[in-house]
Amino acid sequence: MEQKIVQMKDTIAIKTSRVFPQDTNMHGTLFGGKLMAYIDDIASISAAKLCRAPVVTASIDSVDFIKPIVEGDAVTLEAMVTWTGRSSMEVVVKVTSEHLLTGEKSMAALSFLTFVALDDNGRPKQVPKVVPQTKKEKWLNDTGEKRAQYRKSRKIQS
Amino acid sequence: MEQKIVQMKDTIAIKTSRVFPQDTNMHGTLFGGKLMAYIDDIASISAAKLCRAPVVTASIDSVDFIKPIVEGDAVTLEAMVTWTGRSSMEVVVKVTSEHLLTGEKSMAALSFLTFVALDDNGRPKQVPKVVPQTKKEKWLNDTGEKRAQYRKSRKIQS
Amino acid sequence: MEQKIVQMKDTIAIKTSRVFPQDTNMHGTLFGGKLMAYIDDIASISAAKLCRAPVVTASIDSVDFIKPIVEGDAVTLEAMVTWTGRSSMEVVVKVTSEHLLTGEKSMAALSFLTFVALDDNGRPKQVPKVVPQTKKEKWLNDTGEKRAQYRKSRKIQS
Amino acid sequence: MEQKIVQMKDTIAIKTSRVFPQDTNMHGTLFGGKLMAYIDDIASISAAKLCRAPVVTASIDSVDFIKPIVEGDAVTLEAMVTWTGRSSMEVVVKVTSEHLLTGEKSMAALSFLTFVALDDNGRPKQVPKVVPQTKKEKWLNDTGEKRAQYRKSRKIQS
Amino acid sequence: MEQKIVQMKDTIAIKTSRVFPQDTNMHGTLFGGKLMAYIDDIASISAAKLCRAPVVTASIDSVDFIKPIVEGDAVTLEAMVTWTGRSSMEVVVKVTSEHLLTGEKSMAALSFLTFVALDDNGRPKQVPKVVPQTKKEKWLNDTGEKRAQYRKSRKIQS
Amino acid sequence: MEQKIVQMKDTIAIKTSRVFPQDTNMHGTLFGGKLMAYIDDIASISAAKLCRAPVVTASIDSVDFIKPIVEGDAVTLEAMVTWTGRSSMEVVVKVTSEHLLTGEKSMAALSFLTFVALDDNGRPKQVPKVVPQTKKEKWLNDTGEKRAQYRKSRKIQS
Ligand SMILES: CC(C)(COP(=O)(O)OP(=O)(O)OC[C@H]1O[C@@H](n2cnc3c(N)ncnc32)[C@H](O)[C@@H]1OP(=O)(O)O)[C@@H](O)C(=O)NCCC(=O)NCCS
Ligand SMILES: CC(C)(COP(=O)(O)OP(=O)(O)OC[C@H]1O[C@@H](n2cnc3c(N)ncnc32)[C@H](O)[C@@H]1OP(=O)(O)O)[C@@H](O)C(=O)NCCC(=O)NCCS
Ligand SMILES: CC(C)(COP(=O)(O)OP(=O)(O)OC[C@H]1O[C@@H](n2cnc3c(N)ncnc32)[C@H](O)[C@@H]1OP(=O)(O)O)[C@@H](O)C(=O)NCCC(=O)NCCS
Ligand SMILES: CC(C)(COP(=O)(O)OP(=O)(O)OC[C@H]1O[C@@H](n2cnc3c(N)ncnc32)[C@H](O)[C@@H]1OP(=O)(O)O)[C@@H](O)C(=O)NCCC(=O)NCCS
Repeated sequence: MEQKIVQMKDTIAIKTSRVFPQDTNMHGTLFGGKLMAYIDDIASISAAKLCRAPVVTASIDSVDFIKPIVEGDAVTLEAMVTWTGRSSMEVVVKVTSEHLLTGEKSMAALSFLTFVALDDNGRPKQVPKVVPQTKKEKWLNDTGEKRAQYRKSRKIQS
Repeated sequence: MEQKIVQMKDTIAIKTSRVFPQDTNMHGTLFGGKLMAYIDDIASISAAKLCRAPVVTASIDSVDFIKPIVEGDAVTLEAMVTWTGRSSMEVVVKVTSEHLLTGEKSMAALSFLTFVALDDNGRPKQVPKVVPQTKKEKWLNDTGEKRAQYRKSRKIQS
Repeated sequence: MEQKIVQMKDTIAIKTSRVFPQDTNMHGTLFGGKLMAYIDDIASISAAKLCRAPVVTASIDSVDFIKPIVEGDAVTLEAMVTWTGRSSMEVVVKVTSEHLLTGEKSMAALSFLTFVALDDNGRPKQVPKVVPQTKKEKWLNDTGEKRAQYRKSRKIQS
Repeated sequence: MEQKIVQMKDTIAIKTSRVFPQDTNMHGTLFGGKLMAYIDDIASISAAKLCRAPVVTASIDSVDFIKPIVEGDAVTLEAMVTWTGRSSMEVVVKVTSEHLLTGEKSMAALSFLTFVALDDNGRPKQVPKVVPQTKKEKWLNDTGEKRAQYRKSRKIQS
Repeated sequence: MEQKIVQMKDTIAIKTSRVFPQDTNMHGTLFGGKLMAYIDDIASISAAKLCRAPVVTASIDSVDFIKPIVEGDAVTLEAMVTWTGRSSMEVVVKVTSEHLLTGEKSMAALSFLTFVALDDNGRPKQVPKVVPQTKKEKWLNDTGEKRAQYRKSRKIQS
Repeated sequence: MEQKIVQMKDTIAIKTSRVFPQDTNMHGTLFGGKLMAYIDDIASISAAKLCRAPVVTASIDSVDFIKPIVEGDAVTLEAMVTWTGRSSMEVVVKVTSEHLLTGEKSMAALSFLTFVALDDNGRPKQVPKVVPQTKKEKWLNDTGEKRAQYRKSRKIQS
């Protein structure tokens, strides 16, 4: 039986939210834990769009917080599956902030996560293969192999 | 001085979220209050994209809950400014749900809200004029006038 | 079989809360989404007191935000069923704020919502008839018919 | 200068809420921490109605959980100042639950708390004297003296 | 059959959290309700470590708020079972705050609570006997008897 | 001027919490976003204990979710600074779960994060050097250098 194929762009999921006072730390900027909850939420939707099965977060592979996001800003997360193993899927989440009074946008954070698809008994099951189309998608997919290897080496060490 | 003009589509804001157990009522479906918090959040971002000023919710003009949204579904809100008065902006929010295991999508709710732009002293200030392009946008803009009149009559009664 | 009758005043439900920092927006005032969660909560209790059955929010018909509610204020919501159809109930929620240091009270918002009673299969079921007694209750009940018609016309349009 | 006097009943504050799934523990009943947040909130409003000054919780003197409150129930808290010292105020909070499908009401919990009024420098300041009228109010006020003494002895021990 | 015995120190549970803006009241200090939720959570874990059974909060016997905890501080709760009846367990929770920029620590609050262990039918069941070792543990255990008596007298009055 | 030195063990911070229904996903297990909020919170306290300055999360370098944590379990996080650069600090967070009815403990997750200390102008400032003592601490500190290099290479790629 042939493995199903899904276009990368068909796994895109987007979430925009206002940064409210209750989401901020003592610096008046969005705190890491809140952003992580958003990232996990939107990335899990992207993974489910690929595999149409229940998914669990297997690992967060990196989150680089590039620029603080201030109260009142809109924060937009864009998630997309970048690479697939047998039962695992790597998802990238790009986080941009928009200062709503000026419209100025900034790259705020970048994250890679790994999800695993589960069958009815809660065991890992095979996922469709994600295929890139644009140049940027190809780059993300190619480098996914290398990140997968680092994930494995990390696990052996610990 | 001429009034600034903004395209309807440049005010679009999108939010997708997973329905978690803690968002549901005793029927296992998303409860109205939670959805309202999402609607108010995304609509206020849409209004701010038009006027690039602080905004307040002046009224919620209607929310029709068409179909229950169940736990595990993804819920997507799409907000857009549909009509502008002097200082007030009408925003529509379309809510769709997606059953993630099948990909089946349903129209779940539809809402209209009014926001008012504020100047530095917290007083209503003039907003750019929103202009429609597509046929559907034109219909939303045309009927906005009628809904604005109903809002006024409602206010007089109470 | 005769339809049961319930007095309007027997459906009253009251909720008072302090406005905490985490409930406020960038203006230091209660944000719309939070108030909406309170409104939906207290209104659903009022509807359940009438029909003694599970209820769902069918629509929010209007919320007029008249005056901002500032941090530290007490906010009081008073809900009451105003009108009944076959399976639907209209509920009014009056929101007042109290500045606790002075005791000054203000009308802050007014909302009308529609709930539907469900039977064991989740299908709309008949509700008791709500009957007004005071002059103000009669006015609310009489105008309920008109608002019900507007709700229907709104639904056809969309 | 004479000390101001306030009637007990003028300090009453009421809060009704629906018990949602996210408010419950593994037994499907309202968990203690959530109820405590409600109790502290409504009691602080009652204390502020007496003294019209900022207040802080000095102590929770007792909370007796009499009957579990189940998901879907309405929970009603009624707070009233029962006794006043120089800068301290004792508040009682009576918690009742209502099973909404039957209308059956139960006494669910009873709590006594002490609040202290603060002046502009954050130091304890004198409060008006609370005066009882009904028999039940008199009993609550009389026994308040004894509870105040127990509070002091408790403090010395620790 | 002999009653099982558990050392007091084997019931210790610790929780440290940062005080975020959303946890504070209008004085910029941790509000009572939030601290209560923490206290109930950590104390229930301590009680479960003793009895290895489901537990419910039977009463909060005292919470003395000694010093306000300000935003940005770390707050540490240390819970331990101090006394056991047949099915009831008394737990003490000591709350200290740490100003993270200086490392200065303060005693912030002290609380006693009573939990009850439940069997599979939700009825109170016998718990192991907690035994003290250090001098301080002995004092806490000895005075537990007196506090248990006060709890009973309190219940009769109300 | 000599650089200050801090023992690894003096940076330890511990947080234990009960997994409540509202913290779980559709599988009845703690959801990733909630655990991430806990990890970020406790790790930031650990970093602040080292540098006694405001800190921001610069990156999450890895979170490996090893075993699901089920509702009713106690989850314990233990954070410790493992490595210091000039202004950056690496923190490890070990997450264990305890099934409270049996006392059985499991390793549930392991995470590495990087925090940066900020001066009064919000610019990175030098931190004390963390020094290991035990064998396990030395291993964590030694491998910290390698992880720091991977962090840098990751940054250049993106
Ligand atoms: C409300 C709901 C049960 C109505 O179902 P339906 O198939 O339209 O049922 P019916 O056509 O038989 O209408 C039943 C009643 O609801 C009323 N109703 C239906 N849609 C309505 C709307 N948008 N606004 C107000 N009332 C509405 C009808 O007028 C009718 O009233 P009546 O019995 O008093 O004459 C259904 O739309 C639903 O489940 N919506 C989602 C509810 C929900 O999940 N709310 C929370 C959302 S986050
Ligand atoms: C919205 C608000 C600023 C309007 O103030 P106002 O004194 O009525 O101002 P104006 O009479 O000059 O009206 C300004 C605009 O608001 C509109 N407006 C006022 N009340 C409205 C209502 N209830 N619904 C819809 N629009 C309304 C007016 O039609 C007018 O529109 P236009 O400039 O396009 O012609 C004021 O009512 C307010 O601050 N409300 C509270 C807002 C809030 O706190 N929201 C969150 C609540 S939890
Ligand atoms: C409550 C507080 C202001 C009292 O300060 P203090 O220095 O003890 O003040 P005083 O000794 O002058 O006592 C003032 C009043 O408080 C009462 N009081 C003090 N400690 C108390 C306690 N633990 N329980 C009950 N009442 C107490 C005193 O009896 C006195 O009452 P009176 O004026 O009616 O005779 C102080 O302990 C405090 O700020 N605590 C923290 C409050 C807080 O942050 N609460 C939220 C916690 S998360
Ligand atoms: C972290 C931050 C202060 C670094 O600023 P910067 O201009 O890159 O500063 P520098 O280049 O001087 O680097 C300072 C240190 O941070 C480290 N660093 C910078 N980016 C990093 C990253 N993505 N991951 C790990 N470490 C990083 C550098 O290696 C350097 O370490 P060293 O001093 O030990 O050698 C900045 O990127 C920032 O403010 N990010 C947002 C933080 C935030 O808001 N977090 C919560 C997000 S919701």
